Parts: sequence; structure tokens; C-alpha cells
Amino acid sequence: MSSIPKIVILGAGYGGILTAQRLQKELNYNEADVTLVNRHDYHYITTHLHMPAAGTDSIEHARVPISKLIDEFKIDLVKSAVKDIRPHEKKVILEDGTLSYDVLVVGLGGEPETFGIPGMREHALTIRSINSVRLIREHIEYQFACYKNDSKASRMNFVVGGAGFSGVEFVSELADRLPRLCKEFDVDPGVVHLYNVEAAPTALPGFDKELVDYAMKVLKDKGVSLRIGVPIKECLPEGVIIGDGEHIEASTVVWTGGIRGNRLVEQAGFEVTRGRVAVDEYLRAPGFDNIFIIGDSSLILSAEGRPYPPTAQMAMQQGVNCAKNISLLIRGKSLEKFRFNHKGTVASLGKGEAIAVVNGKKWKGWKAAQLKKAVDIRYLYKIGGIPLVIQKGRFF
Amino acid sequence: MSSIPKIVILGAGYGGILTAQRLQKELNYNEADVTLVNRHDYHYITTHLHMPAAGTDSIEHARVPISKLIDEFKIDLVKSAVKDIRPHEKKVILEDGTLSYDVLVVGLGGEPETFGIPGMREHALTIRSINSVRLIREHIEYQFACYKNDSKASRMNFVVGGAGFSGVEFVSELADRLPRLCKEFDVDPGVVHLYNVEAAPTALPGFDKELVDYAMKVLKDKGVSLRIGVPIKECLPEGVIIGDGEHIEASTVVWTGGIRGNRLVEQAGFEVTRGRVAVDEYLRAPGFDNIFIIGDSSLILSAEGRPYPPTAQMAMQQGVNCAKNISLLIRGKSLEKFRFNHKGTVASLGKGEAIAVVNGKKWKGWKAAQLKKAVDIRYLYKIGGIPLVIQKGRFF
Repeated sequence: MSSIPKIVILGAGYGGILTAQRLQKELNYNEADVTLVNRHDYHYITTHLHMPAAGTDSIEHARVPISKLIDEFKIDLVKSAVKDIRPHEKKVILEDGTLSYDVLVVGLGGEPETFGIPGMREHALTIRSINSVRLIREHIEYQFACYKNDSKASRMNFVVGGAGFSGVEFVSELADRLPRLCKEFDVDPGVVHLYNVEAAPTALPGFDKELVDYAMKVLKDKGVSLRIGVPIKECLPEGVIIGDGEHIEASTVVWTGGIRGNRLVEQAGFEVTRGRVAVDEYLRAPGFDNIFIIGDSSLILSAEGRPYPPTAQMAMQQGVNCAKNISLLIRGKSLEKFRFNHKGTVASLGKGEAIAVVNGKKWKGWKAAQLKKAVDIRYLYKIGGIPLVIQKGRFF
Repeated sequence: MSSIPKIVILGAGYGGILTAQRLQKELNYNEADVTLVNRHDYHYITTHLHMPAAGTDSIEHARVPISKLIDEFKIDLVKSAVKDIRPHEKKVILEDGTLSYDVLVVGLGGEPETFGIPGMREHALTIRSINSVRLIREHIEYQFACYKNDSKASRMNFVVGGAGFSGVEFVSELADRLPRLCKEFDVDPGVVHLYNVEAAPTALPGFDKELVDYAMKVLKDKGVSLRIGVPIKECLPEGVIIGDGEHIEASTVVWTGGIRGNRLVEQAGFEVTRGRVAVDEYLRAPGFDNIFIIGDSSLILSAEGRPYPPTAQMAMQQGVNCAKNISLLIRGKSLEKFRFNHKGTVASLGKGEAIAVVNGKKWKGWKAAQLKKAVDIRYLYKIGGIPLVIQKGRFF
């Protein structure tokens, strides 16, 4: 290492932002150079994207300028897209330059996993960024406007692939929004159909059965056609072929069925399982003492040897541990092991409805929905304090 | 005629609504059966459509439920689309039935005239109804959302064909809206281009040269690329070929270049010039004492023998005269001649800008913009009184 070690953080998602903020606190003046690289000049709140995607909330509630979250006197912010990571050269190639590092944090986020379903990558929309979410919202509204001019029935059919966490949260919001769009565009609600298709035998895997049943009842009451245990065989430009060959003709297919690690991680030569790197107990890439991988591209096994699903909660805790370990590393001390502390899970089911498990206790309905808001607000407070809570928080 | 004459009014536009409202006042109890047929259950304010089309105002400011404008105890309202007019059988074929009449008023509105420009009918959007206007707005927003995902440059090029009254009003609003869309979608305003292409040697034909020059300066200041005296040779799925063969690649082409009469009028066998019927001095179709044609499908010559352009002002005055003549007709009295009283013209040029000629006096800028609002409010008052002014009026 040079006299002042250079720390480069790739990605300002949950993991990257937490790492940057904690380093900012931990490090002394001139102890290290920290650079945060992000494609956009904003951080976005991925767990909130299902709302602007459905159009039930403003996109501005789902993002924050990074400059509001970090101290630019302490951390350099580079707005650029990463093109290549070169671990052996200790370099990162950006679309408009190159950065060298002593310590690297890779928090680039994941990518949709389509499991090789033909046509899915080409034709389906995905909830993965502010831009992709705006596209979903506008695409849906555009179908309504077009339908009033060409009366094409498939425009009023909406298919959501996947009934996991993201799928169910998005379907719930869309089910809330569609009647409002019908009113706005003078469309008979009877011609609108919303399908939720899931290959697994149950929706919301990992949730308690009682809560899953509750969630499914909420969706049914909202008019969602559930196809659970039914795989999508193919995605077409106009709809999907499911299970037994049924063709659901739909101009809108949103795929939420899976997340894999970032392709840049695989491209960099790290060993991956579905694009994710099984990091060591200090969150480092195997064979590289100076490279931490956190968030969706990292693989952490539970005590039972099962991989934890990539979540915001996981990424945030990794960020905190990662920052701590970086400061220990540059001070030549021994690192602290990462241990995931699973605090609970809340899934929103549209306006006033949710299911939750917190410290083993189950919640549903209005109380769970309040819990969801509390979790959102707690996150805003964590990264931006009271001012951010006031500016971006949704309290009603 | 039967003992109680049956009057059928086709279309609830400016002409049809004014005819219905005046008949409602003029006729005595049981003097006639009046039926108003309209495709939608709302009346829309065509002169206001350029704003919701550009997205600078809500669609709800541009329409009113017909039930609020007429007394349904006095006038039957039939929501249906006209398929055929059979003057010799005294029948109108609707999409879901048939109506017979003794006196018919045809106020079905016009259609875009594309002057045989190849591809224009297929590929261009037009400002002609609430539905077509919502399509324009959503189409434009969709281009921004798509551009942020595929970076296709043509998505940020917008072409408006025609710099007549409607074209200039729409271009002005769109020029106001585009910077706001850039902000909303994080698009660099430098990549956005708005073209206004007009084949005639001048924009806004019929307006005083000083005012036309003023309007062109306003458009230029808003960043509009003006191509006046340049014809569109062809409209393609992605843009237009103009004048000397230049291809402007654009995902959005809005055609405002002309209006012709309704095809149903031609189809009915009336003699037409560009789809419009040269009505007699009482607004009747030649050869039919019992058929009045008003609005965009009627042709009225000025004292100098030139056809008046079809305007809201013209249709409204025709509606008043038509209602008067119908009551005279069924009472066996002689009809009153129609005389167009041209009160003036106001063209809006976006927020706070307009040009106007009223009683021969010229206005421009902020004062003309206030005049435009006054004209709009006067119309709301005319058809719906104070309540409608309060509900739909734009005062700021």
C-alpha cells in the first residue's frame, strides 16, 4: 500500500452507501482516500421501487442525491459506470477513465435472473432501477392510452412473473392502481386482467403459511388472477406461454422472478454461483485480502448451510461490517467476522395491507402496514437523519 | 311530419351542444322530441385540447359531462357512434340501433386532412378527441422513459406538422413541457429537439404579419426549430422526409396540418368539397329542407367568396341559428339567414404568451394571454353558467 491507502467503493446502493458513511465516521483525517463510484448521482431505495413502478407513489420518494448522504470533503464521488474490475492489476475500468485502488468494495447490485426462460430477457420489463421503474409506469399508462384508440384486448392484460417478495409487493400496488387508471382513461374495469404467475408451489417462499394464505386472500380480493405452481414457459412480444401451454396475451409482462449477482463480478474472474461470490467470513473475495464483496453479488450461508436471500437488510449490515473491517485492515489489525442478524421481514400488500414477521412474531393487515412504514422511515433516518425523513418519508 | 316532430342532433361538439341548449329554451312542452346522439357521454372543448395533448393541463379541464349541459327531461341523450346517415329514408344508423327523424342536425365534427401525404394517416398522431390527446401525452412521456433505457436519439426528436392555428398552439405548449419532462426523467435538454414544419410560405395564415412575426419569435425563443415553407413529403414510422429530402428521425410526429369534413357526410351522399357541404343560407344541405349541417362539415363562404375556416366560433354561431331555424321550421314559419359575425381570433403561445385580433385591434404577449383565458371562460359560462366556470375555468 502507498502511504495513504486508496479505498474505492463501487456502487452507492444499500451496501455501498453504508460502507461510505461508516468509513467517513471511522477514519481519521488523511488516514485514507475514499472514492465512491456510482452510475447515477442519486442513491435509490430499492425496497420502495414497487410503488413508483406501479405508479402509486412518486419516483422522488424512492431516491436521494448522494451528495446529501456523504460528506464530499471526506469522500470523492465519481459519477460513472463501471466497465471492468481487474483484481490482479488493482484497477477498475470506468466508461470514462480508470481508477486504481488498494482496497476495493464491490457493491454493484444484482441483475434479474431469468433462468433461461426464452424471450424473458428480451420482452419483459424488470424492477431494478429508477429508469426501469419509470419505464414500467409509463408503459402501463401508455397501454391505457393506446387501448382507447385501438381497442386491442391484450393491452388490458398485465402479467407479473414471480410471486416472491418483489412480485407480490408489485402486484399488490398494481392492483391498487389499475382501477384508478380505468377511471382516468374511461376504461371499463371489466376488461382489465392482472395475472401473477409463479412456478414454485407456493408464493412468498420463506414466509409462514398463515401469512402467505393471508397475502393470497388480499391479492384475490383485489381481483388478481393467481397462477401459483405454474411456470412461465416462454415470454413473447405479446404475453407469455404458461404451464400447460395456455397463452396469456398481454402487452405488459413484468418479471420479478429472480435476482443473480452482477455480471461484472463474474467477468472479473471471481468464482461465482449464479453470479454470486461466496465471500469469506470477513466479506472478502476468496484469494483477495483487499477486495470486499457485499450486497446482491455476495453469497452468505446461514448456520444451516443455506444461502440467505439478497436483501436490503443483509446489504446494510454487510456495509457496516465492511467499513469496520477496512479501517481495521489499514490499521494492520485483525478483522471482525460478519454475522447476519435477521431482524425480520415485512412485505407490503398495497394500501393499508402487509404481512410481517419481526423477532418471530407475526403481523398482518393494517398493523403490519404501519410496521412497513416504520422500517422505511428507520432506513431514511439511518442514512440521512431527520431532514431526510421529513423530505422523503411517507407517513400516510 | 308526425304530430310531434322528431329532431335528432348528431354530435355534441360546439355546434351540437349549442343547438340542443337553444332548442331546449325555444321549444314549448311537447312541441318536439329532441334526441342528442354522441359517441361519448362528455362534451369536449376542442380549442383547449392542445394543452392536455402536451401535458400542460389536465384532460378534465377540457371536457364536461353532457348531462351537466342539457336538461335530460327535455332532451334524450343517446351515447352511441353514428355509422350511417340515410337522408332519403330519414334514418340514422347507430352502432347499436337506428333512429328515424323529421329534422336532422349533423354536427359530427371534422377529421384530420393529410392531403395524401404518404404515411401520414398511418404514423402520425392527431389532436382530435380526448382519446387521441391522451395518446399524444402518454406517447411523449413514454419516449422519455424508453430513452433512459435504450438511448435511441430519435426518441428525443419531436415533429409537429403544420404551423396553422392548432399547430402553433400545440408546439408552444410542448415547448413549455419538454424542459419539465427533461427534469422529471433526468434527460439532458441538449438532446431534445422540437421541429415545426409548415408547407405554406407563412405560419398562422390569416393573421397579421406583425403578429405572425411575434409568434415566430416566441417559438424560436422557446427553442423550436421552425421549417416554414417546407413541405413534409412523407411520414415514416420513425420521422418525416421534408422539402429537399432531409430525413428528420423522430419517434413522435403530430399532424395538425388540416381539417376536412366528416366522412359520414360524404358517405351519406351529400355533395362535398374536401368533405364539407356547401350549405344554403339557412345552414341546410342542398336538396334537403330538413337537414342542417353545422360545424367542421359545413362550408360557408365569406362576402368575398372565400370559405371561412372551421372554428369553434363559427360552429357556436351556427348552433344558435340552427336551433332558431328548427323552431321556425316546425312552426311553419320562414327561416332566418345565417350570417357569421367574426368577433376575432386569439392564439395562445404557451404560458403567458398569445397573439390576438379582436374587433380589428391587435394584441400580443401577456395581455393577449389574458384575452385567451377570457374567451375560454366566456365559453364555459355560455354553456354551463357560473358553476362550470368555477369547476373548469383556468384563471392562472
